[in-house]
Amino acid sequence: MGSETVAAGSETMATGAGPEVVVVSNRGPLSFRLDDDGEPVAAGTGGGLAGTLHPLLTGTGSTWVAASMGEADRLAADRGLMAEDGLRIVTVTPDADVYRMAYDVVSNATLWFCHHHLFDLPRRPRFDRRWREAWEGYRAFNRLFADAVAAEAAEGEVVLVQDYHLALTGAMLAKGRPDLKTVHFSHTPFADPNVLRCLPTAAAGELLAGMAGFGTCGFHSTRWEAAFRAAYADPELAASAGTDRPPASFTAPLGPDVQAVVDEAGSEAVVAAGRELDRVVGDRKLVVRVDRVELSKNILRGFWAFEELLEARAQWRGRVMMLALAYPSREGLADYLSYRSEVEHTAERINETWGTDDWTPVVLDVADDYSRSVAALTRYDVLLVNPVRDGLNLVAKEGPLVNRTDGVLVLSREAGAWDELQSAAVGVNPFDVTATADALDLALSMDGDERRDRAAALRESVLGRTAADWLADQLAAGQALP
Amino acid sequence: MGSETVAAGSETMATGAGPEVVVVSNRGPLSFRLDDDGEPVAAGTGGGLAGTLHPLLTGTGSTWVAASMGEADRLAADRGLMAEDGLRIVTVTPDADVYRMAYDVVSNATLWFCHHHLFDLPRRPRFDRRWREAWEGYRAFNRLFADAVAAEAAEGEVVLVQDYHLALTGAMLAKGRPDLKTVHFSHTPFADPNVLRCLPTAAAGELLAGMAGFGTCGFHSTRWEAAFRAAYADPELAASAGTDRPPASFTAPLGPDVQAVVDEAGSEAVVAAGRELDRVVGDRKLVVRVDRVELSKNILRGFWAFEELLEARAQWRGRVMMLALAYPSREGLADYLSYRSEVEHTAERINETWGTDDWTPVVLDVADDYSRSVAALTRYDVLLVNPVRDGLNLVAKEGPLVNRTDGVLVLSREAGAWDELQSAAVGVNPFDVTATADALDLALSMDGDERRDRAAALRESVLGRTAADWLADQLAAGQALP
Repeated sequence: MGSETVAAGSETMATGAGPEVVVVSNRGPLSFRLDDDGEPVAAGTGGGLAGTLHPLLTGTGSTWVAASMGEADRLAADRGLMAEDGLRIVTVTPDADVYRMAYDVVSNATLWFCHHHLFDLPRRPRFDRRWREAWEGYRAFNRLFADAVAAEAAEGEVVLVQDYHLALTGAMLAKGRPDLKTVHFSHTPFADPNVLRCLPTAAAGELLAGMAGFGTCGFHSTRWEAAFRAAYADPELAASAGTDRPPASFTAPLGPDVQAVVDEAGSEAVVAAGRELDRVVGDRKLVVRVDRVELSKNILRGFWAFEELLEARAQWRGRVMMLALAYPSREGLADYLSYRSEVEHTAERINETWGTDDWTPVVLDVADDYSRSVAALTRYDVLLVNPVRDGLNLVAKEGPLVNRTDGVLVLSREAGAWDELQSAAVGVNPFDVTATADALDLALSMDGDERRDRAAALRESVLGRTAADWLADQLAAGQALP
Repeated sequence: MGSETVAAGSETMATGAGPEVVVVSNRGPLSFRLDDDGEPVAAGTGGGLAGTLHPLLTGTGSTWVAASMGEADRLAADRGLMAEDGLRIVTVTPDADVYRMAYDVVSNATLWFCHHHLFDLPRRPRFDRRWREAWEGYRAFNRLFADAVAAEAAEGEVVLVQDYHLALTGAMLAKGRPDLKTVHFSHTPFADPNVLRCLPTAAAGELLAGMAGFGTCGFHSTRWEAAFRAAYADPELAASAGTDRPPASFTAPLGPDVQAVVDEAGSEAVVAAGRELDRVVGDRKLVVRVDRVELSKNILRGFWAFEELLEARAQWRGRVMMLALAYPSREGLADYLSYRSEVEHTAERINETWGTDDWTPVVLDVADDYSRSVAALTRYDVLLVNPVRDGLNLVAKEGPLVNRTDGVLVLSREAGAWDELQSAAVGVNPFDVTATADALDLALSMDGDERRDRAAALRESVLGRTAADWLADQLAAGQALP
């Protein structure tokens, strides 16, 4: 960032060493809940993207534009609690109906499914009049954010817009504040042209036109970047977008917040959770997975593969456990509730079929227990990360970082993290249950030297690129804009 | 075909004016059923591809290699009934288990879903050990055909292999009979690379290597041809195929057998069925669809769109009927049974919601009544052809050919036939229920001049390219091979 820009863009002086920018995301750094008296109290930083960005921006004098996610957030903003030293938090407050349409219907039930190729096309999506109203809600939600950014950003400032919830803000800002250097970063994959074409023609066009308004668009994997560029080469999509010219684009995979994850792994809570795990697992081998209960994570085929391992290779019966830590997600959507129920029933069925008095083959825990998750990562023999399609998958990086047993990573080739980790992971086609079972067997049977070499290589790769590098890449991409 | 080749390839002298070639397809020109005494009696030509090819090959002295589809066919072949003047029929007899694995599991439940993008990816496909056995069955089935062709074809002869059931015969014939000029024609779309990558890696590779063995591969649409070529440009697919070089390829859309369809439309049975339809429909407008009960045909969204039309535009209530002729298909597959049940329940629900004493909004007929289907085509006001993805869709061409009421064609942009018919049809995004409802309204409201112009343009386009042209293109592509 040029020094003029720093001066112009700075309303709060930077107190940290990080970048000073405008960051824009649906979820902000602070979240609140209501206490018994109906007063908002801090509920800690949200996980995921906001949790990753927060420590990087604290004290940098940056501005963060985010939605108030509910009543508690709204009250907190009113009372001036949405504030932090050295980080200016600007909240956008959509009304509840607009938020539901923008977040649930369009962002999560449509765009998420689209970019992850999760549609069951003979039946879903169903674009009807109700959906069109939701799309208007999505547009209004984007407009609120664009207006807030336009009001808050200094002349020529770099603006980093995060994720698919805000894809339309590019064109809005290009029109309203053409001086800004706008960057969009997608934490999801990007849909193939034929899947994007499922969207109502005008909506697909508006989406692509919206993103074409950014100065540049970033992705975790060259595959998603290529799919993004391919959309503008599709004649029908380009016609509805009104342009066949994608904006500049770049690939910059996220890395973990190394210090935070390592610190957490050494915390008392994690050590205690680890002791409890030791008790449950005993001297058996341990296959771990840590996910949201999420259709893209491929939890069902993970279980089927584990069952095929037990069926095909009797030596593992009683000798290995699968620990599936799958915390609940998006339970307002029927698809997620029914997927959770399928996941639970499949685990039960496998345990009924194969379990014995002293051995439960699959331990499924749908509680959100971060310490337990990190403890499981420190001591897996095999970490199974087999999404059908995944923007990056940070667990595939965090696991090798904290694992202390030279555990083997079995990784889907459809995860963005595959780009960086493929030389040291055991790759799988996530749709291939037999190949996944074979990969689990290979990983469980691997000799100590190979485990050590692979674990070291994974660690080296992960340490080579952290969350700060990722943010720096976004910032540099923004600064390089004309 | 060079004259030497004719001489060498001819065991039965040609009696007709058509081409003399070896045609290879799963289903042959003749099918049999068992009578009460257990004796095989002719059950008429099968529909679909075989029904299209049969009149073109009758009397040409060609050879047709096809599977015996069951006990009756097998008995008929044994008794010498699989024979016709001027058409040599060679039957291949897989055992029932191989046939089930090749036809049901691999061809219909896997490759059909793959090429039509019908997978519900969080759950299906499920490639397990049982599927791998089925793939071996598919390979064995292809081997039987390749061996039969190798034994029957004359030196240098043109061999036209039809459809996805026989994709592996290309490599087999390239190895065993490199002198042959082999052509493969796909009646389905071809899967995008990312969908093809769902197949077990080795199977995807074997499929592409199998097809790379043909001299040339044909498709109904340039889109499917492009997807086919793109598969070989995918590094992972190319690596598993062992080649990044697709064979030559061409696009040659099928046309209807004009004379046969026109004759049928004038037949007594059709005239009688038309009278019965007149009675049911009265002076209401009539929307018609004619499909198999098939997940790719998008029958559900067709109903939802019709319902949205009734909901949003009160003037059509009581004034329009949808006649959905959907004959049963693949009922050995659970997916098809459950889809049929969804289709039936949706029609019932709409009738319960909107129907009156003297008006049934949706008439769903799942009987296979060809005369009734043709009668419906002669008198529709709107023909709805809205597949989610379709190799060609011959109904979209047959309808305009026999329709006598200047009916309007509402056509999915994802059907292969869209390439040729787009200037005169009303196009729809098949996933967009509202857009489909709007297209129905537009078509139903269209003035007489525009209806006439569009109907004339459709008829002209359809008459410009018949089934014989399509076969001639395949033959020419084969003859042009070195």
